Amino acid sequence: MSNVIEIAKLAKEASISALQLSTKIKNDALYKIANALNLGKDEIISANNLDLDNANLLLEKGEITQSAYNRLKIDENKLRDMIQGVRDIATLEDPVNKIIWEKDIAQGINLKKVSCPIGVIGVIFEARPDVISQISALAIKSSNAMILKGGSEAEQTNTAIFKIITSALSEINEFPKNMINLIFSREDVKIMLDADKYIDLIIPRGSNSLVSFIKSNTKIPVLGHADGICHIYVDEFADIDKAIPVIIDAKCQYPSACNSVETVLVHKNIKEKFLPSLIKSLKENSVVINSDEEIKQEYSNDINAIVSDWHKEYGEKILSLKIVDNINDAISHINKFGSGHTDCILTENDLNSEKFMMFVDSSGVYKNISTRFADGFRYGFGAEVGISTNKTHARGPVGLEGLTIYKYKLFGNGDIVNDFTTGLKQFYK
Amino acid sequence: MSNVIEIAKLAKEASISALQLSTKIKNDALYKIANALNLGKDEIISANNLDLDNANLLLEKGEITQSAYNRLKIDENKLRDMIQGVRDIATLEDPVNKIIWEKDIAQGINLKKVSCPIGVIGVIFEARPDVISQISALAIKSSNAMILKGGSEAEQTNTAIFKIITSALSEINEFPKNMINLIFSREDVKIMLDADKYIDLIIPRGSNSLVSFIKSNTKIPVLGHADGICHIYVDEFADIDKAIPVIIDAKCQYPSACNSVETVLVHKNIKEKFLPSLIKSLKENSVVINSDEEIKQEYSNDINAIVSDWHKEYGEKILSLKIVDNINDAISHINKFGSGHTDCILTENDLNSEKFMMFVDSSGVYKNISTRFADGFRYGFGAEVGISTNKTHARGPVGLEGLTIYKYKLFGNGDIVNDFTTGLKQFYK
Repeated sequence: MSNVIEIAKLAKEASISALQLSTKIKNDALYKIANALNLGKDEIISANNLDLDNANLLLEKGEITQSAYNRLKIDENKLRDMIQGVRDIATLEDPVNKIIWEKDIAQGINLKKVSCPIGVIGVIFEARPDVISQISALAIKSSNAMILKGGSEAEQTNTAIFKIITSALSEINEFPKNMINLIFSREDVKIMLDADKYIDLIIPRGSNSLVSFIKSNTKIPVLGHADGICHIYVDEFADIDKAIPVIIDAKCQYPSACNSVETVLVHKNIKEKFLPSLIKSLKENSVVINSDEEIKQEYSNDINAIVSDWHKEYGEKILSLKIVDNINDAISHINKFGSGHTDCILTENDLNSEKFMMFVDSSGVYKNISTRFADGFRYGFGAEVGISTNKTHARGPVGLEGLTIYKYKLFGNGDIVNDFTTGLKQFYK
Repeated sequence: MSNVIEIAKLAKEASISALQLSTKIKNDALYKIANALNLGKDEIISANNLDLDNANLLLEKGEITQSAYNRLKIDENKLRDMIQGVRDIATLEDPVNKIIWEKDIAQGINLKKVSCPIGVIGVIFEARPDVISQISALAIKSSNAMILKGGSEAEQTNTAIFKIITSALSEINEFPKNMINLIFSREDVKIMLDADKYIDLIIPRGSNSLVSFIKSNTKIPVLGHADGICHIYVDEFADIDKAIPVIIDAKCQYPSACNSVETVLVHKNIKEKFLPSLIKSLKENSVVINSDEEIKQEYSNDINAIVSDWHKEYGEKILSLKIVDNINDAISHINKFGSGHTDCILTENDLNSEKFMMFVDSSGVYKNISTRFADGFRYGFGAEVGISTNKTHARGPVGLEGLTIYKYKLFGNGDIVNDFTTGLKQFYK
């Protein structure tokens, strides 16, 4: 049996044992991990230095970007945030064993819908070692077993953090072994994708092509997000004074985030009043504008008159700009080219915002607010596994609740269906 | 472009238009369909006779079973139930546009989590023409577009019912075209499974191998149920007078249903008191018992001493019988061989029932009640799409709620994230 299958099998067993974990034991485990990470700071930073040495070579060869290098690097600040993140998850409400609803379905027959963990979750994430403690903490709090595969560039750091976490957990007798597992290679991922007997959900964090590859190669449900192609539509009834800061925030506050804006659509009736100041602000913030020849001629030579690839997530300070004839065209453009992530209307007209928020088929539909708010922390979930553009199970920022499902508990006293089909007994209406 | 891709594309457009459907229009549509089905009775029965003629030939050649033939056949009673089923769905609560929760995440920023339809759902179902009106009605009530593929043996009947439904819908101006679609061939299904750009969910109703094939051949999320291998565990603290009727009901009330019991596990401490009467009752109800040589020697020559295939769903009056040493062995057996459908403990001991209901990893965990209660109607959902053994999105009997997802609506007044990262503003705790 391959090592990964063995890991998956043991994780499945752990997930069953974990069903009895009390909130107190789980929180104790989280505080223990936080303390252990704090004590293991030097170890983590040494391991990280090994990864950074390798990454430096890749950076020189141009094989990774500076921002990838920055994500890989762990310093005192990042470590402090990581540790605080684990403690924060301890303070969140336990998402399992909650009675979602209950009712008597007939005399003496009580039905309860009760939240429970999903079971075993495989998470494939980028070379960001701070993710490993966050995902592990979410797994523990939601009583799920996890199999983690981090980016290979972070192998030393991941291993160091993983060892600290599992060693802390091993000190708690009531805590099942094999709850948190780490795998390393692409080959391991392939085996994991075949282990639908043991693994209940795969969460890939990464590029569109990674998510698509995974969906094509597994029978296991996949909770992923494709691109983050977010739009802001400036309605003819927009308040210009609000619109400019929102667009600048959505584009510039953190351009590589998936919730930053890629395309601004402007209603033709407002363009003369609005475009000169928008273009001026964008230039002041070093944003490159892609639009068409007509806009370039009319408003600014600085605009690139190129046919925008509306499907493209720039991830940097580049913005596509388009004039639309009406709100319907804006909605159609977004539903056609968007990724169902987060899209915003800027307007003072309630009918238009209602229409936009009804017909735009995205996980987040916003009115007069920056798309950068699409985030589990900002929504008050305390933590997030990622942002889902799925239309089943969990959509938008996914917190602890997205790591749960439910079971139905039915309590009777020797009841049989035959008494109901013969009419002897009746279900309540 | 293939016809199926064109259908899927138009269904996607229809699903967007459907976002504005009011409850009233949807209910009007359902009543109109019910009336049209009533007026079209003769048409449906004539079409069904054509299918039955073909089915008769297959039956003679032994290519379909008598129960498949019975499922195909539509008589006055079945038609009346079909029509009533559509009317019943009109009376259910509208599952979309419900505010699941809302909160202010910061001064002046309001977040609403609102239920909405999934979009386009592909349903692949067996040769049971009564399903087409039920699924169509659920689609309409939940504002989802549907692409239906029924069993080929029911092609004439399905076509007749489909024409009546779409013709009724076409009389309602506000109702989008192309909401309900019918496809026919296996080739069409293959194309549908590739249309992840347009289709958001596939629901296969059928055999384990069909569901597995579909999961292996699509990137689209699949909501299916595998086998229904249900267990009853007779604890050492069971009340024998309750236990026998529950087991007989669970096995005999409708043996081909997925929620009927396949395996009874009996605690060793109760076997002497319990087995003679259980075996007697099972024999009286013509149930074939598979167990081992020891049980056969001790209790009855009528028992088949064969090694049971614990993974097998008999679907008829056959029952596997096993003695277990304790409740832990019962739980392990169920988690190993069960299908996560519905499993029951018979006991008067609350600690044991709590343990069983916690550790058995199934969509339904029952205490002292027949497994045959696992059903959307009996749970009070008014209707069901099927029973899911998935551990994501929807589990157990799936009613209208399982055909919905949600979007987040965020309302601001020009708010930007930068004000929060600089500390100028704070999120509420």
